[in-house]
This record gives sequence, C-alpha cells and structure tokens, in this order.
Amino acid sequence: MLSLSSSLVSFGGIAKPVSAPISLKCQYNPLRTTINNPSDSMASSVAPKWAQKTVTLPPQRRGCHLVTSKIVKEIGQEMAGFKCGLAHLFLQHTSASLTINENYDSDVRDDTETFLNRVVPEGISAPWKHTLEGPDDMPAHIKSSMFGCTLTIPITDGKLNMGTWQGIWLCEHRDAATPRRIVITLNGM
Amino acid sequence: MLSLSSSLVSFGGIAKPVSAPISLKCQYNPLRTTINNPSDSMASSVAPKWAQKTVTLPPQRRGCHLVTSKIVKEIGQEMAGFKCGLAHLFLQHTSASLTINENYDSDVRDDTETFLNRVVPEGISAPWKHTLEGPDDMPAHIKSSMFGCTLTIPITDGKLNMGTWQGIWLCEHRDAATPRRIVITLNGM
Amino acid sequence: MLSLSSSLVSFGGIAKPVSAPISLKCQYNPLRTTINNPSDSMASSVAPKWAQKTVTLPPQRRGCHLVTSKIVKEIGQEMAGFKCGLAHLFLQHTSASLTINENYDSDVRDDTETFLNRVVPEGISAPWKHTLEGPDDMPAHIKSSMFGCTLTIPITDGKLNMGTWQGIWLCEHRDAATPRRIVITLNGM
Repeated sequence: MLSLSSSLVSFGGIAKPVSAPISLKCQYNPLRTTINNPSDSMASSVAPKWAQKTVTLPPQRRGCHLVTSKIVKEIGQEMAGFKCGLAHLFLQHTSASLTINENYDSDVRDDTETFLNRVVPEGISAPWKHTLEGPDDMPAHIKSSMFGCTLTIPITDGKLNMGTWQGIWLCEHRDAATPRRIVITLNGM
Repeated sequence: MLSLSSSLVSFGGIAKPVSAPISLKCQYNPLRTTINNPSDSMASSVAPKWAQKTVTLPPQRRGCHLVTSKIVKEIGQEMAGFKCGLAHLFLQHTSASLTINENYDSDVRDDTETFLNRVVPEGISAPWKHTLEGPDDMPAHIKSSMFGCTLTIPITDGKLNMGTWQGIWLCEHRDAATPRRIVITLNGM
Repeated sequence: MLSLSSSLVSFGGIAKPVSAPISLKCQYNPLRTTINNPSDSMASSVAPKWAQKTVTLPPQRRGCHLVTSKIVKEIGQEMAGFKCGLAHLFLQHTSASLTINENYDSDVRDDTETFLNRVVPEGISAPWKHTLEGPDDMPAHIKSSMFGCTLTIPITDGKLNMGTWQGIWLCEHRDAATPRRIVITLNGM
C-alpha cells in the first residue's frame, strides 16, 4: 500500500558499500579515522561531542508562543560545530509544554490554545480534586502531559533540520506564569 | 507499592563491577578498547557511530497507517551495524504525526482516527480562526501536537527493540495529503 | 516579545572560545583528549558511553503511578558515571504510557486519570470497532498515543536533570494490568 522514496545526499564519513537507494546524509565512525590519523584536524572535527545548557525564558502570558529564534540564538554557535546530531530540549516544569507546530500564522497558536481550553475542563464545572494552586493549575498539568515537556530535533550541517513550516512552541498553561527553564543537550559529530 | 524486577542479559563491552541485580544489556566505553588495540576490527565495530537519512513517504489517505516495515526497509541495513543505540524519527510536517501503537488489528488504527475526529472539532461548528487552508487544516495542526512529530526507539543487536505488539504509525490528518518527509537519525555503537 | 537569560555553569571539557552569554554546562570532545593522552584515566572517564537495560515493573492498578525512585534505583549506579548525557525510556506496550508530571500531590495523578477517562469514551456509548480485548482496551490504546510511550531526560553530573516538581509517571490504562517492560538506554560521557 505504501511505497517510499528516499531523499539522499551523501556527504562524507567512512565509505561503505550501500545498495541504492540507501544513501546516508551522514555516516561517521570516527575512531577508525582518528586512530589512523591522530593529528588530523578533520578527524577531530567529526569526533563525538556533547554540549548542555540551561536556558531560562521569562514569564509568558497563557497561550502558545513561537520560540525557535530564541532557542537557536542560544545554541546556534555551538550547533554549528555539529555535522550530524540531535538537539534535545527538556522543559523543567509540569504546567507548561513544548511542541513543534506551524511557524507562520499566529492564529494557529491561538486556535491551539482555544482547543486546549475546550478539551480540559476548568472552573466550577471541572471535576478536579487538586485545586489548592488555583483553578488553572490542574488543567495546566494535564495539558503538559498532552503535549509533553521534551523534544528531540535532528541537527544536519550545523542547523536544526526542521520542515519549512515547523517551529518550536513553548505553551504556557498557567495564568500567572513564572520563568521557564529548558535544559538543552546537543549530541553529535 | 511498586517493586521491580530486571530482565538482564549482559553481552559485552567493558567489564565493570556491578552489584546484582543491575546488569546491563550493553555497556560500552570504546575508547579504552580501541586505543589499546587500534587495529582490532571488533573494537572499531563498537565505536560510536551516527547515520542520518531523509525518507519520503508518498501521500496517504487521512487516517492512521502502519509504516514499520517501510521504515525498517530503509534503515535496516545500516541499523544492523549497531549493537546498542537509538533510532530517532522526525516528521518534518505540522499536519501529520508519528506515534507508536498496535501493529496487528487495523481496527485500532480506524478507531484512533475516529477518536481524533471526535475530540478535535471540524467544520461549521468549529471555533477556529485559521481556516484559509481548509476546514481540515487547523484540526490537523492540533492532532499533530497531540501525538507529536518525533519518536525515539531503542536499537538492540541491530534491530528496533519494540514490544511484540508495537508498530510505527504515520497519522495523516489532512484530506488532500502531500508526500511526508521523515528525517531518521541513528546513533549508537 | 520574548527575551532569554541563560543559567550558565561551565565545568570542563575542551576549552573553546565562546562569547558571553553562551556558556555550556558540559562540552566534551573526547577524542582529542584521549588520543593525546591514551593512558589518562580522566580522559577515559569522559569517553562516549552507552548502557542499555530492560526493567520490568509489576502489574499496577489502572491509573497514574509515580515511578521515579524505582527507575533511579535501577539505573542510578550506572548513571553516576555520566557527566553529561541523556536517559531514554521506552515502554514496550500499547495500552500504557510514560509521561513526566508532578511528583508531589497524588491528587494530580488521580485527576489526570479522571481526565483521560472523560476524554476517551468507554463502554456502550463508545464508537469503537476494536472490542474483542474488552471495553477498556481501545481506550487504552488511544491514551497510550496521547501521552506516548517514550521519554528522554537529560543527565547532568550523574543524575536525571529534572525540575524540582517533576517525576516519571507510568500510566496504566488497562483494568487487568500485566507487567510492563521499559527499555532504558543511557548515552553520554
């Protein structure tokens, strides 16, 4: 029923015989290279690397916010050193969320907030036991698990390899928001 | 309240003293090994590796589709070289999603599509501002964030280490679908 | 609209000139170090490492369960060897889920279960075709995709780097639960 075609650009690493149409964008096995040429700076540049950073975003109003450029500003310089890898974002909170969605029309973000408020009851009619932290707190916890607090995004040629219309959203689910911390971990070669 | 039992098969890597019942399926620290034996091909085979590929799936009808075998066909040969690692899938779109669910009864996929259409309003009664791209577009964005566009799956002994009944689903949320691109990143040893 | 401030503690690895305010918590490029000093035990300790383990949790009653301490008990000793990395959890089932949410008030877990049972119809009024495995099975599949079966959590200085109020939840969506297997993969330096 399904058939697949591959989008293929091979750009380096250890050459292995691969039958068409399998061709990899990155394929690195650095040790063979670096052990043969320990002083080769190219070899060093494709060694496995890790970087980790905690970014704090200031309080946002309740709703969905596009934060791609702010995230890239924080990690872009470091990310430029990765030919191939993964960027992991981890929001250290339980009443906000991270998701990937449209980066263009702000109505999409507004409509998503409308949806969340419709699907998760809030106020007098809501069935929650956990109400001590305010009527918006328990709905915020539920929304956080619906969208999640973690994202992993591929890095290719030093940049986040997202689709044309994709962006990173921080969704704030509390009325009185606090600063939000995101632990960003880069891993690759 | 909870107690845990571990399923343990140790199969190589650097031996470290670990107290029972902690025993790891894979435990590698390749540099010590490879630097001691730079010409050892076994050592090279457990060096850290990265591979990345973009796969394009042809347009699918709206609904949930089991795509495990198609994905494995694209990455299986490469994945066979990984004793231990992670496979990361990233869908580059905001109106479709990736999820893991049952791989057997197609009714589960149909019922999931039924659920999504019930929980996210569509058409005249829907409250969306973003309607320029058609009545199914805003619901598609919401469904994409509900299920997400990324998956990370463990690799063990060269294969995806999913449960017996698990499969990879591509959920198409648009009526008039376009081809869908998935960036697949393999990382391991 | 947004502004960012970074929380920055640099603690080692290869020194690279980075302009303020970009400063990384971990930044390792182990090959340069280890190849220059193959017998340096410090260098070895920051080499890339992988560990993988399958943990089996005993049957839980339907609902949301805080399992952080049980998970940490299983991987804590191994994780202590990672200065910087990621812990990946993969639940090998399609009728339960993993999520991160509040670790304190058990009412939050109860209310989340209440929400899931409200948003996913179950019983005579439910529209499901897939009913052979019981009235709670199809709702369980849907809930599994809503919250997801995978989590990736940063490791910093040998510990899970979650927020103060975050915990790992196993959400059991079946009435008659079975043991649940989680494949845990650690990757870092």
